[in-house]
Amino acid sequence: MQRRIVSFEEGDGRDRRLLGGKGAGLAEMTRLGLPVPSGFIITTEVCNEYYANNKRLPDGLEEEVRDAIHKLEEKSGKKFGGNKSPLLVSVRSGAPISMPGMMDTILNLGLNDDTVEALARESNDPRFAYDAYRRFIQMFGKIVLCIDEKIFADLLDEMKREKGVIYDHELDYESLKELVIKFKNVYKEHGKTFPTDPYQQLMLAIEAVFKSWMGERAVEYRKYYKITPEIAHGTAVNVVTMVFGNLGNDSGTGVVFTRNPESGEKRLYGEFLRNAQGEDVVAGVRTPEPIERLAIEMPKVYEELVAICSKLEKHYREVQDVEFTIERGKLYMLQTRAAKMNAYSMVKTSVDMVNEGLIDKSKAIKRIDVEQIERLLYKQPDPKYDAKPIAKGIGASPGAATGMVVLDTKRAIEFAKNNHNVILVREETKPEDVPAFFKSVGVLTSRGGKTSHAAVVARGMGLPCIVGCSEISIDEEMRVFKANGITIREGEIVTIVGTNGYVYKGSIPLIEPEITNELKQLLSWASELKRLGVRANADTPEGAKLARSYGAKGIGLCRTERMFNASDRLPILVSMILTKDKEERKKHLARLAEFIKNDIKSILTVMEGYPVTIRLLDPPLHEFLPRVDEVEDLPNMRREEILQRYKELEEINPMMGHRGVRLGITYPEIYEYQIRAILDATVELRREGINAIPQIMIPQVGSVEEIRVIKDIFENVKRSIDYDLSFVKFGTMIEVVRACLTAQEIADVVEFFSFGTNDLTQAVFSFSREDVEGKFLPLYIEKGILKYNPFQTLDPAVGKIMKMAIDDGRAKRDLEIGICGEHGGDPSSIDLCHRLGLNYVSASPHRIPIAILAAAQSAIKNG
Amino acid sequence: MQRRIVSFEEGDGRDRRLLGGKGAGLAEMTRLGLPVPSGFIITTEVCNEYYANNKRLPDGLEEEVRDAIHKLEEKSGKKFGGNKSPLLVSVRSGAPISMPGMMDTILNLGLNDDTVEALARESNDPRFAYDAYRRFIQMFGKIVLCIDEKIFADLLDEMKREKGVIYDHELDYESLKELVIKFKNVYKEHGKTFPTDPYQQLMLAIEAVFKSWMGERAVEYRKYYKITPEIAHGTAVNVVTMVFGNLGNDSGTGVVFTRNPESGEKRLYGEFLRNAQGEDVVAGVRTPEPIERLAIEMPKVYEELVAICSKLEKHYREVQDVEFTIERGKLYMLQTRAAKMNAYSMVKTSVDMVNEGLIDKSKAIKRIDVEQIERLLYKQPDPKYDAKPIAKGIGASPGAATGMVVLDTKRAIEFAKNNHNVILVREETKPEDVPAFFKSVGVLTSRGGKTSHAAVVARGMGLPCIVGCSEISIDEEMRVFKANGITIREGEIVTIVGTNGYVYKGSIPLIEPEITNELKQLLSWASELKRLGVRANADTPEGAKLARSYGAKGIGLCRTERMFNASDRLPILVSMILTKDKEERKKHLARLAEFIKNDIKSILTVMEGYPVTIRLLDPPLHEFLPRVDEVEDLPNMRREEILQRYKELEEINPMMGHRGVRLGITYPEIYEYQIRAILDATVELRREGINAIPQIMIPQVGSVEEIRVIKDIFENVKRSIDYDLSFVKFGTMIEVVRACLTAQEIADVVEFFSFGTNDLTQAVFSFSREDVEGKFLPLYIEKGILKYNPFQTLDPAVGKIMKMAIDDGRAKRDLEIGICGEHGGDPSSIDLCHRLGLNYVSASPHRIPIAILAAAQSAIKNG
Repeated sequence: MQRRIVSFEEGDGRDRRLLGGKGAGLAEMTRLGLPVPSGFIITTEVCNEYYANNKRLPDGLEEEVRDAIHKLEEKSGKKFGGNKSPLLVSVRSGAPISMPGMMDTILNLGLNDDTVEALARESNDPRFAYDAYRRFIQMFGKIVLCIDEKIFADLLDEMKREKGVIYDHELDYESLKELVIKFKNVYKEHGKTFPTDPYQQLMLAIEAVFKSWMGERAVEYRKYYKITPEIAHGTAVNVVTMVFGNLGNDSGTGVVFTRNPESGEKRLYGEFLRNAQGEDVVAGVRTPEPIERLAIEMPKVYEELVAICSKLEKHYREVQDVEFTIERGKLYMLQTRAAKMNAYSMVKTSVDMVNEGLIDKSKAIKRIDVEQIERLLYKQPDPKYDAKPIAKGIGASPGAATGMVVLDTKRAIEFAKNNHNVILVREETKPEDVPAFFKSVGVLTSRGGKTSHAAVVARGMGLPCIVGCSEISIDEEMRVFKANGITIREGEIVTIVGTNGYVYKGSIPLIEPEITNELKQLLSWASELKRLGVRANADTPEGAKLARSYGAKGIGLCRTERMFNASDRLPILVSMILTKDKEERKKHLARLAEFIKNDIKSILTVMEGYPVTIRLLDPPLHEFLPRVDEVEDLPNMRREEILQRYKELEEINPMMGHRGVRLGITYPEIYEYQIRAILDATVELRREGINAIPQIMIPQVGSVEEIRVIKDIFENVKRSIDYDLSFVKFGTMIEVVRACLTAQEIADVVEFFSFGTNDLTQAVFSFSREDVEGKFLPLYIEKGILKYNPFQTLDPAVGKIMKMAIDDGRAKRDLEIGICGEHGGDPSSIDLCHRLGLNYVSASPHRIPIAILAAAQSAIKNG
Repeated sequence: MQRRIVSFEEGDGRDRRLLGGKGAGLAEMTRLGLPVPSGFIITTEVCNEYYANNKRLPDGLEEEVRDAIHKLEEKSGKKFGGNKSPLLVSVRSGAPISMPGMMDTILNLGLNDDTVEALARESNDPRFAYDAYRRFIQMFGKIVLCIDEKIFADLLDEMKREKGVIYDHELDYESLKELVIKFKNVYKEHGKTFPTDPYQQLMLAIEAVFKSWMGERAVEYRKYYKITPEIAHGTAVNVVTMVFGNLGNDSGTGVVFTRNPESGEKRLYGEFLRNAQGEDVVAGVRTPEPIERLAIEMPKVYEELVAICSKLEKHYREVQDVEFTIERGKLYMLQTRAAKMNAYSMVKTSVDMVNEGLIDKSKAIKRIDVEQIERLLYKQPDPKYDAKPIAKGIGASPGAATGMVVLDTKRAIEFAKNNHNVILVREETKPEDVPAFFKSVGVLTSRGGKTSHAAVVARGMGLPCIVGCSEISIDEEMRVFKANGITIREGEIVTIVGTNGYVYKGSIPLIEPEITNELKQLLSWASELKRLGVRANADTPEGAKLARSYGAKGIGLCRTERMFNASDRLPILVSMILTKDKEERKKHLARLAEFIKNDIKSILTVMEGYPVTIRLLDPPLHEFLPRVDEVEDLPNMRREEILQRYKELEEINPMMGHRGVRLGITYPEIYEYQIRAILDATVELRREGINAIPQIMIPQVGSVEEIRVIKDIFENVKRSIDYDLSFVKFGTMIEVVRACLTAQEIADVVEFFSFGTNDLTQAVFSFSREDVEGKFLPLYIEKGILKYNPFQTLDPAVGKIMKMAIDDGRAKRDLEIGICGEHGGDPSSIDLCHRLGLNYVSASPHRIPIAILAAAQSAIKNG
């Protein structure tokens, strides 16, 4: 059996799992010869024993605690409960990962009516002794015996009023002694007894730490941050010999970071409070001074602190966040841990530490919390400003924007012409609204999910967007929307934050994004280290340009349908869809093909030298049609005929209907024109000397026969063009379960696979993203039925079927395999893709830096 | 290398693949010592060589043909092209499986200007010889040289007019000789030459047979019947010494079945034509006589024929369909093959042959085409009556019905009250229409697929139903519907055939179903032989009763939601759905639970002693709501509030939305009340001494955590009841892909799996059945992209993922696994289920006999 208790000298500072974070730090600092008060750790295993044992401390633990205390007595020459030189201890919780909500600290444990007198004598400061006693009774009552802390606080306030003083430390010895009596009475009134035996105090305090592990707040916290029991693994208890920062003006206590956690500057950052115990800093009764003051007031102590911090940084190769106490001029270290930093500082310190030779590039990348990097790439609300949102929807495209509410597409364009920043607010959007997207600074819809039209279009344009904001209801006629009782008229200013889905009335301060040189440096290191390729999902030259500037080496998903949205094309597209005559359809397609060819030329030019994977038409045709109430007669079609055609095209579950390759098979001319446009664009560019590398990708494929039909079209078009186009790869999305199950057959016919994990996840779960994400999915996550949103992070079951497809697809040949679902920009999904052996991930342009960093982390982690 | 040519003596009559059906029959009859004219077979391999060789006959074939002809010459003492005793042959195609559309027969090959004279001399019948010559030139011109047959026919008619005769055989020698010259001129006018060399004639005829293999009609036929190249395997060519049925009144030709193919009666059935060649029978110029006449006219020949037929039946152990020719009193057998029979005869002859000791029970079951059995179970249009349908939809529930068209639910009920047979015709149906279903004899909808509301409800009730009949358009205001230009007013009579989707104007003669004693006998043998259990999908006591009478041993799917449809329950259900208040919801649920409990009691009672698998609520709640335009204020909810709730419940892809177990998790009270109703029903019955065995089944499960939540509810309800309910099994449908992928985890928590292959197929294909089945799916099948409709026959990829689930589910325990999708009634799907090792299939009540037979066939086939 493992030992239940280890002293700081014995503990292995690397074993955070057993010792908890705090205990491991104390043990490690002891081992490094730093000034740490003596103490010992009751391990996390004991916590698990406690719960396995039906919340009973294990037999024999008390004896072991007594032994450990005896050793402290030997070391200090003091005695626990002794009435000469009493040993006092603090009891602190400490889990393997830092976790608020658990029991904090009980100081001064070991005091009773006898030892307090001894302490008074020894310190020669009865006021100090009774203040310590008063604090202990108060903390013990609150934390261990669960007496409402307000009762003690009120008595303290009453006493201060009575004595005519303002601050706690102004209370004199007599008052404190009186207060001790009053506090003890509180115990009695609550049917509790203050235990005078220090060992009893200690055992109760230890159990209180264990209990707090399952306290409501701690449990909530673990749930919120998805900390599984496996990772969390109980809390340890630290029992530390007391040192006092409140023994006069040569004493004090403080907290410092070894570098600035906001700016990353290499300089101690923090504060200290003279003549105080730690809790006084937290309580905020007195204002601490910046740490620089310590250099002036106690220069030797400051120097020692600087040296220790430097030693700790070199040892841990990580910025540290340390707590210390000065007792009568002597420095004691009470805690050290890795500092929490903002994104900016995280990046800067990483690069600095590499340059200082403290860490290598791998370590620099490993320490980055890549999700935080997103904040450096978009406009964000200033976190210092505390605004209250009026509604919350689904954050569908990150970034923040402030502008004037407009509820109608045409008016949005007009207002934008007059130089207003417009936020387009609609129930949902359709292709006919897209011209307004180009003129708006942000989009807000009351319906739809992360794959709704508004979400996809906005994301492609890098436009902040909130969708499915069901808390607002729009009244188009009255030109207002209501959100939780607040009415916003068209023309009023709002701010939307697409990163998290919050809507604010009026404008709130925003912070501009900033790509620092350090971030660029880090990305270039990451690019060297990663093994996954990183491409972008981009449908426009602008998107492609941005992605390339961020380091994307190609486009993994270019959706041709987005090219239809411009107002000069949509009417042609609509006519093409409405007609049932193949020849007329071809006429419209020929006109569209010309537009598309030019769009594709621009994108291929921007991405010159890198592959651009172009997906043929995917959505069901009805998605492109105007709203029913906006249908009018066409030159060669009456309104009734058009509505009849609407009825024919209507679908009950459009997600699983007539779309993707199924359109290419029923209307082969559509795919033929698209393929021809792509190949013509390529030939024209190549003849101009531009190295265009398109790849043609077919969506929604479920069987090899489908892809054969389209491959024939592709080969025929290729043959009709007088140019060697053998370099143009032909491939398929893998987003239908059946494609995964028949991957080996499909691999016979294509040159690449690209996992469309958005649709694949929908199919594996039988979840329509738009119908579940804003509805029952949050409850599923809250209840722990799902660990996370499978549309953000790849589900293991989806990974399992991907693995089948990869193994089968590569069974007979070396196949290029990528992913172009949104998961391609999610760090833990990227890690899975790395482990699955994909060739590349494709992410939206703004996520490229994140993808590069995550890919590098995976390469480092998985060796 | 295999030999290209085999004689009838040499051929292995079991090798239909090599010899074709006709050749194999001729070889086998030769081996049995039956009177077969000599001949030889050019094998199917040669046909494949011909196509592999770019449509060129293989080198050396002609020499082999010459050798084979020489052997015929030796045997017959005649000479091919000889001007004394000329050898004439017929050339006939013959593929491994019978296939119309290929070249038929060329008779009298070997004739030319010289041999015709020899034939005239030898037969002593110049008229006969020139008639044979005229026929040969005509057939050869049409079949081998592709000259329009009408030209020859016109010349023949002209000649008859000229000679003042009516029938061909009335033309005399001179006229026929003249006709031969005219026919030869036709060749010249078409730039062709009549080949006088018999070997040249023969080689051209052989090539014509091979060419006809890829003729348009043959290819279409194979496509239609899904005959893959692997199965079809080319055609053989049979070259047979000519015998003549037209050599006078002691000659003739005929076709007989060894038993009656309609009634199954054990007696020769067929007809013959005196003094005729086979083609005369086909041409229908003269009326053949029933075969019984042969017994009178040529008693010895008849006796011989009866003996041969009996020998063939004993040999093949199968009813035979034979062709024969009598040449001057001598009987020759020209063909034998298994007889095609109707369902009735198939069943009767099977049972008879077992009783006669001709075959055993396994063989009796094996020979049944189970799909045809369905015709014995439902009312069907009389196949003798040739009616023209006015429209075709999707046959969703089999059987036929004649009745008065009614376009509205309320009027349907009124008309039915006045004793009219009502056919309910709607665009689509909703739960509020169900009361009219109970009063109608059939249902026809213009929209929706095989899983639409109308389809599912009608099937459950055994009501003939056609859905998705997009050829009709309903005008409710005018009270008419139009179908392909025909207008049907409300009140007019139509006949619908749910078996195939045809709609007829007026009434057409229908045949009543009949479960014969022979069928009962066959089913009882099948029940002994099968190893798969057979249960029924039934939601009503009537359905359960029917299923049990057919031999179902339990219910594999009882859908609780169908119990909500009665008009006394629907309003309560609607109120339950509309309210957002949990307590109010519980109030409504309590009322519903009482109804459900009684329904379940009835079903459990009918199925006493067998398991009844009850599925908890599955469809999304909005499916139960009345149409928007029928919404009115409720006592405690205004119309606007109700419509707001509609909006909240609305879904873009309801198939993948808030349904099944997801409802059970968001509204646990719904499942709790359902579980309690089931358990209360069980306890009440058991206390009355009725052996009720319910199983509780959860739909749409995708993760083990979902099923855990519901299992907790189940256990809690069980604990609250004072009765040992440990026999009640708790299980899950497997219809979500993720459930297949995590089957091992799920199997930890449940006692059975039941594959919901309807939904699973949808998910594997990303096909919404309702959106694809009536739309692009037919094109997919026509183009061969899919071999068959995966909603009718289990797709191999779906089988693959089922196998994963089965293997994983049973990895650690012995799990009961069944299937309750519609595939449970499809023979080839049942075969797959057998091979996958399922415990049972569950099919709709009317398909139970089919399922039992198919399960027995699988057990026999797979050993």
